[in-house]
Amino acid sequence: MSLSSLLRHMGRPPLRIVLWDGEEIYGSDDPPIASIRIHDRRTLWKLLCNPEVQFGDGYSAGRIEVEGDLVALIESLFKATGQSTRHNPRAALLPDWYRSLSSFVLGKLQRNSIRGSRKNIHYHYDLGNDFYKLWLDSQLVYTCAYFPTPADSLEQAQIAKMDHVCRKLQLQPGETVVEAGCGWGALALHMARYYGVSVKAFNISREQISYARQRAREENLSGKVEFIEDDYRNLSGRFDVFASVGMLEHVGREHYEELGNVMDRCLGDSGRGFLHFIGRDSELPLNAWARKRIFPGAYPPTLGQVMKIFEPRNLSVLDVENLRLHYAKTLEHWLERFERSADLVEYMFDRDFVRAWRLYLAGSVAGFRTGWLQLFQVTFARSACNEIAWTRAHLYQTTERELSVNSSVMHHQSRS
Amino acid sequence: MSLSSLLRHMGRPPLRIVLWDGEEIYGSDDPPIASIRIHDRRTLWKLLCNPEVQFGDGYSAGRIEVEGDLVALIESLFKATGQSTRHNPRAALLPDWYRSLSSFVLGKLQRNSIRGSRKNIHYHYDLGNDFYKLWLDSQLVYTCAYFPTPADSLEQAQIAKMDHVCRKLQLQPGETVVEAGCGWGALALHMARYYGVSVKAFNISREQISYARQRAREENLSGKVEFIEDDYRNLSGRFDVFASVGMLEHVGREHYEELGNVMDRCLGDSGRGFLHFIGRDSELPLNAWARKRIFPGAYPPTLGQVMKIFEPRNLSVLDVENLRLHYAKTLEHWLERFERSADLVEYMFDRDFVRAWRLYLAGSVAGFRTGWLQLFQVTFARSACNEIAWTRAHLYQTTERELSVNSSVMHHQSRS
Repeated sequence: MSLSSLLRHMGRPPLRIVLWDGEEIYGSDDPPIASIRIHDRRTLWKLLCNPEVQFGDGYSAGRIEVEGDLVALIESLFKATGQSTRHNPRAALLPDWYRSLSSFVLGKLQRNSIRGSRKNIHYHYDLGNDFYKLWLDSQLVYTCAYFPTPADSLEQAQIAKMDHVCRKLQLQPGETVVEAGCGWGALALHMARYYGVSVKAFNISREQISYARQRAREENLSGKVEFIEDDYRNLSGRFDVFASVGMLEHVGREHYEELGNVMDRCLGDSGRGFLHFIGRDSELPLNAWARKRIFPGAYPPTLGQVMKIFEPRNLSVLDVENLRLHYAKTLEHWLERFERSADLVEYMFDRDFVRAWRLYLAGSVAGFRTGWLQLFQVTFARSACNEIAWTRAHLYQTTERELSVNSSVMHHQSRS
Repeated sequence: MSLSSLLRHMGRPPLRIVLWDGEEIYGSDDPPIASIRIHDRRTLWKLLCNPEVQFGDGYSAGRIEVEGDLVALIESLFKATGQSTRHNPRAALLPDWYRSLSSFVLGKLQRNSIRGSRKNIHYHYDLGNDFYKLWLDSQLVYTCAYFPTPADSLEQAQIAKMDHVCRKLQLQPGETVVEAGCGWGALALHMARYYGVSVKAFNISREQISYARQRAREENLSGKVEFIEDDYRNLSGRFDVFASVGMLEHVGREHYEELGNVMDRCLGDSGRGFLHFIGRDSELPLNAWARKRIFPGAYPPTLGQVMKIFEPRNLSVLDVENLRLHYAKTLEHWLERFERSADLVEYMFDRDFVRAWRLYLAGSVAGFRTGWLQLFQVTFARSACNEIAWTRAHLYQTTERELSVNSSVMHHQSRS
């Protein structure tokens, strides 16, 4: 495939490619949004063979450079590809046989068995808490935030997200919650502190669990929140509520049955639950580069695929909310903070790592902005349970506590 | 099968069966919620052969009578059956082969081809507007209402439902809407009057369309709302919005592909839409009696089945709301009004008709109360469309107009 036929195949994105010898190729007649500079023939050749992986690898290694707005460039690629594959989204960029083969091979290498999951999760989440502290919010919430208005700060929006989740679950003091995949523990601690529930929170990332335990001790919440370093498949006991925020995308399609059985076992006859996850509008694997270099074993499911978890188990979907644009906004905050700490990240890791993570964050902003990725929150309960919210109006009434939290966050920010 | 083994198979519902000779059989050791009186041996024999259809037919003909609360009785049947089939809901009441065979035969007889749909819809919706005026609200809205609080009147709740739909769709003055399956036209007229949009509304029920046209003329809305007596599959043109309230359950699974193509064709690149329908938590045909005697061709889908309409078509689900308990409440109002007019209905039709419709309405209350039936509202837009609501808070802010409409409804009610 030549570069111009690749660009045609990709739906003629409005960009300029500059080769090592100064040759310029334009994707379309429109003025280019940004330029891609390819430094040598070998890089071009690899890009033509496997654009999805090699663009990322070439960019990370500095053999491909982008002049102009990286997010806008990737957005234009997604948009052009989306239009050219409008009626056949699976055909994007790569031939089907290649897609199937690489999915199969990656799937084998990255399988989410109990041992495989530990390896996959360690790869991403155990990069060191100090790294994540550089660009996440102060509570290290590494999932989509909820911005009551787009102007809210990231700190406010992560607190608002945790309240949004707790309200959707209608948590009552004294209830028991099990959380599958708890990150650095912010949600579990928030639930216990402000909603008076007891939480058992599971995670297989060692670094995250030890951080969460320390926070619980420091905040005198160890009696209410137990952080357990174990796989969600090993959780046992009965709970009023099952909650999982940002884990489903790491579970893998072939394990939904197991996850459903775990939920079923935990919930008894009147339980309720909540799943928050990155999803898709149609079935498509995660970008191959991201799966290879950033999130091994990850797969964003469609709602249809997720319904298979609920349908055989007397579980009733009460509410689905798509927060796609909130994730684009969250990622804009992360990317901005990341760029401010880029020198420090380079010192902690290396230049290629900075470039890879820049590409991952920018690509994710673009993915959510263009609708290539979705963020679904699903609230559910046992089919026969009538102790469910009459309307959703209660989600939109701000309490005194939230107002004071917000004003203290703003106060804290204006001081710092 | 004997009567007591039938009761065991049904999960031991707490009821008493009294036979023609005075013999009494108890479903369980608990005090019975109600009594079922079976008047003759032939009726019992039929009931044992095919309980799902023959209970309804026997009740309609007065050969089976219920002493006590009919809704509570059916609820107890659903609950007991639900528990006995907890891990195998398809096995409820009838053997699988019987279920498959009768589904196949009914499916053939009631197929939702363009001609078949006309027959199926005519059967239920063309019983005469005078009949429906006896027990629906004043605007003849024959779908689930939305009660901001459970104490709201049916009139208020149907208006609130129409506003809830219009807000979910974020209708803007001057936009164009196509409505598939418009009933007596209340929603189309509401959209045009209060949200300033132009509506093309399709329906194959002759009686409903002629009523809707007359209302449009009387209310000087004929220039804004066009009522078209035709099948949704024949609609053409481009619209900003596709809306359908209470039609999907009559479309039939085998026609979702066609419906999806119609939506795709109508919406262009930036359209949005709304589906409101009776659904299920797991795949199961509608009760065989209801399908045979009340709603030929009807099938309430699961969310997973409905997702197949969206997934291949670049359509993004933004919001799903389950209003199951609101439909139970709506049906309680309908049943109460129906009972108040039972004599008049018997005069218009006959005693068997009154009994059949009483059973259908009571059974539906029980179905929604026990979670055998669900009511889903799904809001969607093209995957790439970013002109979507930032949050759902706007759905829960009551406008001045709604407040005044509500107070005038209350005023009207207190006068009448």
